[in-house]
Amino acid sequence: MARLPAPPLAISLGDPAGIGPEVIAKCWDNRSAFSLPPFVAIGDPRSIAAVWDGPIEPVESPNQADAAFDIGLPLIQMNAASADVTGHPSVAGAHCSLDALELAVGLARSGSASAVVTGPVAKEQLYAIGFQHPGQTEFVAERCGVSPGNVVMMLAGPTLRTIPVTTHIGLSQVPQTISSSLIESRGRAALRGLQRNFGIAEPRLAISALNPHAGEGGALGREEEEIIAPAIAALAAEGWRVSGPHPADTMFHARARATYDAALCMYHDQALIPVKALHFEDAVNVTLGLPIVRTAPDHGTAFDIAGQDKADPRPMAAAIRMAAECAALRLETA
Amino acid sequence: MARLPAPPLAISLGDPAGIGPEVIAKCWDNRSAFSLPPFVAIGDPRSIAAVWDGPIEPVESPNQADAAFDIGLPLIQMNAASADVTGHPSVAGAHCSLDALELAVGLARSGSASAVVTGPVAKEQLYAIGFQHPGQTEFVAERCGVSPGNVVMMLAGPTLRTIPVTTHIGLSQVPQTISSSLIESRGRAALRGLQRNFGIAEPRLAISALNPHAGEGGALGREEEEIIAPAIAALAAEGWRVSGPHPADTMFHARARATYDAALCMYHDQALIPVKALHFEDAVNVTLGLPIVRTAPDHGTAFDIAGQDKADPRPMAAAIRMAAECAALRLETA
Repeated sequence: MARLPAPPLAISLGDPAGIGPEVIAKCWDNRSAFSLPPFVAIGDPRSIAAVWDGPIEPVESPNQADAAFDIGLPLIQMNAASADVTGHPSVAGAHCSLDALELAVGLARSGSASAVVTGPVAKEQLYAIGFQHPGQTEFVAERCGVSPGNVVMMLAGPTLRTIPVTTHIGLSQVPQTISSSLIESRGRAALRGLQRNFGIAEPRLAISALNPHAGEGGALGREEEEIIAPAIAALAAEGWRVSGPHPADTMFHARARATYDAALCMYHDQALIPVKALHFEDAVNVTLGLPIVRTAPDHGTAFDIAGQDKADPRPMAAAIRMAAECAALRLETA
Repeated sequence: MARLPAPPLAISLGDPAGIGPEVIAKCWDNRSAFSLPPFVAIGDPRSIAAVWDGPIEPVESPNQADAAFDIGLPLIQMNAASADVTGHPSVAGAHCSLDALELAVGLARSGSASAVVTGPVAKEQLYAIGFQHPGQTEFVAERCGVSPGNVVMMLAGPTLRTIPVTTHIGLSQVPQTISSSLIESRGRAALRGLQRNFGIAEPRLAISALNPHAGEGGALGREEEEIIAPAIAALAAEGWRVSGPHPADTMFHARARATYDAALCMYHDQALIPVKALHFEDAVNVTLGLPIVRTAPDHGTAFDIAGQDKADPRPMAAAIRMAAECAALRLETA
């Protein structure tokens, strides 16, 4: 039986004053070169028209996007209350970006879109309109009925995927924040995400140490022995293929990367430094633990360069490609 | 006036039971392919003969090495008290590795050798014979009459050089160990080292943040504002070209690396993760702040693979090449 074509991806433009509209429009321009599947953008058409003179194809729902995709950039319109000014974020723009995100998630939840890709938002403006979440990830989790504690952020490039156990906390808070149970739950979410989103039946997870030289037998710290090793043992006892604690400086070279499918790291920079050093232009933020597929480019609104035709569309293109790949793997294994 | 040829490099074999003898012999084997200048090894010839069947050319002093280098591996002999067993470190081997290091440094201090390259040693055995320094670097500093606090370790690869402000301490100790004065003194040593060892007249130093997103205006930590930024201001006031504090995850991609000559990082893994992710096979440990040039490959004794013909000589070759380059630049600017 022939398979029906997958629904298109839903992409929220993010803040209308940021670089989201520009990079999404550039992705449509380069849809062949970037090997992109059909997608529908959601947001204010004026924010695109202000920075791009290509054709916009207004659509009502994702099922019209396939036909429209060859003619212009398919867009579900979402008007901001006041005219957006590129480079100058506003409260109206924040409302617009939140509405677009909400609709994109709803379309994916209902199956009308096969995945969600989110453009960058301005947190300060979102907080000003009463947004209570640390970021888009937690909002998406809530709308999917998942506890924010059960979703994890993965940063994925072509040869390296990493997941931080702790994220946006000061470095001095990291040693007291990591615990065996936190490492176990993040590890489980990462391993299940590798199965579900990446189609890896028996995923291999490498788990980093906290201290230099993995603590050097306790001389440089005891977190490896007291916190990390027990978590690894617990995950292994459940049948998962886990290894570590590995000294973080020697786990990201090519030969080491070939021995695992993802690396679970103890803190933000430990996870993000190697992926961005190796894959700055095509590192993708993937949220694991959701009932839907959600990816995002790993950059912000970049208001300082918005509207100057300087924004690099490659991270957004990588996020779109990865969303499509993950969605296809979920369909296969569903 | 024709310049006299530079003296050869002096290379201590390191622990005779480790992979030092093997990788140094392999470097001589591949001296043309690796573009290596003449060097003289210092150590126990039996440790080489046990793992290599090439020709050894015993010499008495470095000035015989040039002529010998085409015939065999020039070696200043240093006998261990008992026969070495590859893969099994001994107290006699530790004495031998320390004597070789001492002689190599002395030859460089006197000008008979143009630089020192050190093979990997076994710290446990060195401690057993009364060695009081954290590592070879501090021993070399003392023999050169320099306070260990004034030398800094740089890890240098073809496209990235990093210097850690703190090194072998637990991660939980890092926030309380960094201070403005420590960052300033490490920064100065790094900048002077870039001038002296790398011939960069006006070096550019990028200085990392400690916390994710450089503390995000204080929300994720105040060390950037209270400790790092004042140190950067002080260095800038002295006329140095310094920048930062930079979020560590976005300072190591190719475009960012092109904007500085070295990165000063707050802790071990922050400095070593990116260099080893990008340049695992040819990252070189360079000691800055010494009156002599000293480099080392950034790997250990690897007793587990010693004598099995598995050791990769490329890191040692990179250390030899970089020592020769630094020595030549010092001669030019002397």
